[in-house]
Amino acid sequence: MAIETIVWGENVHEQTNKTVREIYPNGMHGAIAAALNQDKGIHATTATLQEPEHGLPQARLDKCNVLVWWGHQAHGEVSDEIVERVAERVWAGMGLIVLHSGHFAKIFKRLMGTPCNLTWREAGERERLWVTSRNHPITAGLPDHFELENEEMYGEPFGIPEPLETVFISWFQGGEVFRSGVTYKRGAGNVFYFRPGHETYPTYHDANVHTVLRNSVKWANNPLAAIPNVTDAPNVPVDKAPEKITERGPKLHAAGEAGYR
Amino acid sequence: MAIETIVWGENVHEQTNKTVREIYPNGMHGAIAAALNQDKGIHATTATLQEPEHGLPQARLDKCNVLVWWGHQAHGEVSDEIVERVAERVWAGMGLIVLHSGHFAKIFKRLMGTPCNLTWREAGERERLWVTSRNHPITAGLPDHFELENEEMYGEPFGIPEPLETVFISWFQGGEVFRSGVTYKRGAGNVFYFRPGHETYPTYHDANVHTVLRNSVKWANNPLAAIPNVTDAPNVPVDKAPEKITERGPKLHAAGEAGYR
Amino acid sequence: MAIETIVWGENVHEQTNKTVREIYPNGMHGAIAAALNQDKGIHATTATLQEPEHGLPQARLDKCNVLVWWGHQAHGEVSDEIVERVAERVWAGMGLIVLHSGHFAKIFKRLMGTPCNLTWREAGERERLWVTSRNHPITAGLPDHFELENEEMYGEPFGIPEPLETVFISWFQGGEVFRSGVTYKRGAGNVFYFRPGHETYPTYHDANVHTVLRNSVKWANNPLAAIPNVTDAPNVPVDKAPEKITERGPKLHAAGEAGYR
Amino acid sequence: MAIETIVWGENVHEQTNKTVREIYPNGMHGAIAAALNQDKGIHATTATLQEPEHGLPQARLDKCNVLVWWGHQAHGEVSDEIVERVAERVWAGMGLIVLHSGHFAKIFKRLMGTPCNLTWREAGERERLWVTSRNHPITAGLPDHFELENEEMYGEPFGIPEPLETVFISWFQGGEVFRSGVTYKRGAGNVFYFRPGHETYPTYHDANVHTVLRNSVKWANNPLAAIPNVTDAPNVPVDKAPEKITERGPKLHAAGEAGYR
Repeated sequence: MAIETIVWGENVHEQTNKTVREIYPNGMHGAIAAALNQDKGIHATTATLQEPEHGLPQARLDKCNVLVWWGHQAHGEVSDEIVERVAERVWAGMGLIVLHSGHFAKIFKRLMGTPCNLTWREAGERERLWVTSRNHPITAGLPDHFELENEEMYGEPFGIPEPLETVFISWFQGGEVFRSGVTYKRGAGNVFYFRPGHETYPTYHDANVHTVLRNSVKWANNPLAAIPNVTDAPNVPVDKAPEKITERGPKLHAAGEAGYR
Repeated sequence: MAIETIVWGENVHEQTNKTVREIYPNGMHGAIAAALNQDKGIHATTATLQEPEHGLPQARLDKCNVLVWWGHQAHGEVSDEIVERVAERVWAGMGLIVLHSGHFAKIFKRLMGTPCNLTWREAGERERLWVTSRNHPITAGLPDHFELENEEMYGEPFGIPEPLETVFISWFQGGEVFRSGVTYKRGAGNVFYFRPGHETYPTYHDANVHTVLRNSVKWANNPLAAIPNVTDAPNVPVDKAPEKITERGPKLHAAGEAGYR
Repeated sequence: MAIETIVWGENVHEQTNKTVREIYPNGMHGAIAAALNQDKGIHATTATLQEPEHGLPQARLDKCNVLVWWGHQAHGEVSDEIVERVAERVWAGMGLIVLHSGHFAKIFKRLMGTPCNLTWREAGERERLWVTSRNHPITAGLPDHFELENEEMYGEPFGIPEPLETVFISWFQGGEVFRSGVTYKRGAGNVFYFRPGHETYPTYHDANVHTVLRNSVKWANNPLAAIPNVTDAPNVPVDKAPEKITERGPKLHAAGEAGYR
Repeated sequence: MAIETIVWGENVHEQTNKTVREIYPNGMHGAIAAALNQDKGIHATTATLQEPEHGLPQARLDKCNVLVWWGHQAHGEVSDEIVERVAERVWAGMGLIVLHSGHFAKIFKRLMGTPCNLTWREAGERERLWVTSRNHPITAGLPDHFELENEEMYGEPFGIPEPLETVFISWFQGGEVFRSGVTYKRGAGNVFYFRPGHETYPTYHDANVHTVLRNSVKWANNPLAAIPNVTDAPNVPVDKAPEKITERGPKLHAAGEAGYR
């Protein structure tokens, strides 16, 4: 069964900037979804900021295996309620791929617990991505490094927690480096951040980038059934304890009372 | 110079529950601060929910090296603004020790990016903490395990990201286990979660617990000057690039414009 | 295509100890392989210490996707040459599952770089394994905890490096805890250590243990082609550098010379 | 009390290569020790391959808090027995700093459990080290990046396990990147690998490199008393179990018998 994938696009610069529109006539989300759909194991559709509930109503999210996120100018317009909804789906097992300027998306900052900041320069310089984790599933079919002739620079320090694994590190012509591919686990959800993808360059038409996108969706997919009530903190009554015990000492909670939160 | 430490206490059950008040006549925060001040290298004061700005005005936080946090019933009453203020101080280098029911404190969930949930039982059962990281600074002076005769049970799964290091794991009489001491780094800030400390038991009068508290404050302290403007994402103009480059291709941003966030 | 799996068994106590022989008439390796072969996605065969090259000639190992290792009394009889051969296959992408007393197997110590020691007691006590990483692929189909009524105790501190992920933690009746399921990456190879399996108890006839074994083989399998010459340290000559540079300064190595090692 | 530090130098190229001798008339180990001794908190002495027991007799190692290791041409001449001796001291709590070509030193490979390989080029090109972990103790007093005008290139993939923390990443003029500063814990010992230091360049006369060396010795120092018998796997008899239990079921070991290893 194909991996149900939603490509979320902010869809602002495609409407307001001629350069972006020319490079991505179907939107950046459209280009990314098309690249994913080249793999029969993936079924990708799109969602955008402007749709009701940003295109992410609960019922649709519940069926989504992997969410791909690209945003930039309008991070602040994403509703906090939707961000929490996405976070809960990630904890319950949905994969999440965050792209480029999505480092400042509310959902990424929410899941990282850090500023997610970096240095940057928009000069169309050369970026070279090096694979640092050989034969990681996300690198399947890639050479040991590949280049993007024109990209925005993102430089260290990158304000993220130490990754589970560092998969790519970028070299920039102007002299900086950046951890361009990093993995995390948040609850049962696999999270991958991938750096390239500035909107004024044709990055999402690059064959190696397509390979990374498809690999990362497959890597992030967790086929197990979603964890229900993923934020619950259940009480285990004394008579249900795995070992027989007798209650002792003073208590705060009455029997059956929920915990504080 | 002594490590400036603030012990933050919710200070609710000490006021409303006779048992808690009898065990901790000076408040739980008072007992913890007193234990810390037994070490001349630490200078601990207290702050509570009920004080203006919860006792954590910016100027005071700026001088604080390590913040110790105990809360339970009133997590929801902590102001979101103060939580962000504390998070920024952690990123800039302040240490944070989160105790027991603080697993559900806003600041802990904010920094972890996960639900931080668990299972629980209030039965006064025996807890035995095992050191899993021998000679970790937080374990200095401890035996390989120690017991608390009456404690609340917290059980796995604990909804946290994979720790930097697991320092303690607890055994419970009723049959559960729990990662009772875990470390993280968030920005430049060292974070330690320590499980024991239910308010109806005299846990913060235990000598081994005192040792852990003092050790963890010293471990969490980062003597380097706080990182200024820790959430900034500075632009590096083309003429300031470490290597000489020439700007190429289309641009989104005008020179000197701030990035989107 | 099925995952080619070799179950390596020391095969000593099955020959010398009546209890072990009665529980495992086809050997422990035989019981484990049979459990794996219940899954059509796995093709498991066995190898033992007593066979030429311990049943692990290079050609056989080269076709092996996942190696499962159980040893105890005869760790010292395993040839160092075979250990290096297995290590290289792991680095090149072969999965490795190390069971129980295999914590002291040469191959496990070789890959961990630590003593891999622990405390132990052979008293047939109850062990309860708790899942600490919900919905980890290795836990598919398991309840949140399961019990083995009779097992040897292994206790912390366990002399291993901090795991990539801690998947199980065990509770023991006698009062100890242990990180019973831990994952690592060594080169391109996925490594999983799983604690249960003392030879005088019917652990490898337990349905939940079977589930873990099958899941872990599938988790450890890396479908990418093995990395050739995985220990090479290739020179990149100046004229093959990704960016044009000119050689400068004094040199140690003549052109084309191999590096020291 | 000063941190007892031994700087171990292979001391071969200083004897056989005029360029190296001119840059380091007192040996590379001599230059490194002198840089360390500029800090009153460090007491550094040297040891070399050519001395009896390579200058590392047990009694001397037992008093050593941090060992700094530089080797290149003669890795193979280091005795396996001394390597095991050093590994045990690390597990017991001694810090270890491995420099540059020491990535292929027996002791580093022993502790990592991986090939520790990389790509390389000796062309005197520019290296720029970026701090990736802001305010990490090893970066105290450093700018956000610094340059070495002439260095050997080391390129990814670097055959190491995922680090505890990545502290530096290098940019190379020829187009490669490298994780130049990585930390590990092995037992109670802190391990730091630092990339720069090719013998034909004056790297160990650079002020920023001196800062890193001094910081890393202080970071690696574990003031706790060494763990005795660090590889022991003690039996816990039934009557010493923390909880009262009764022995059940068949046994392999007679009472008081040592475990297999």
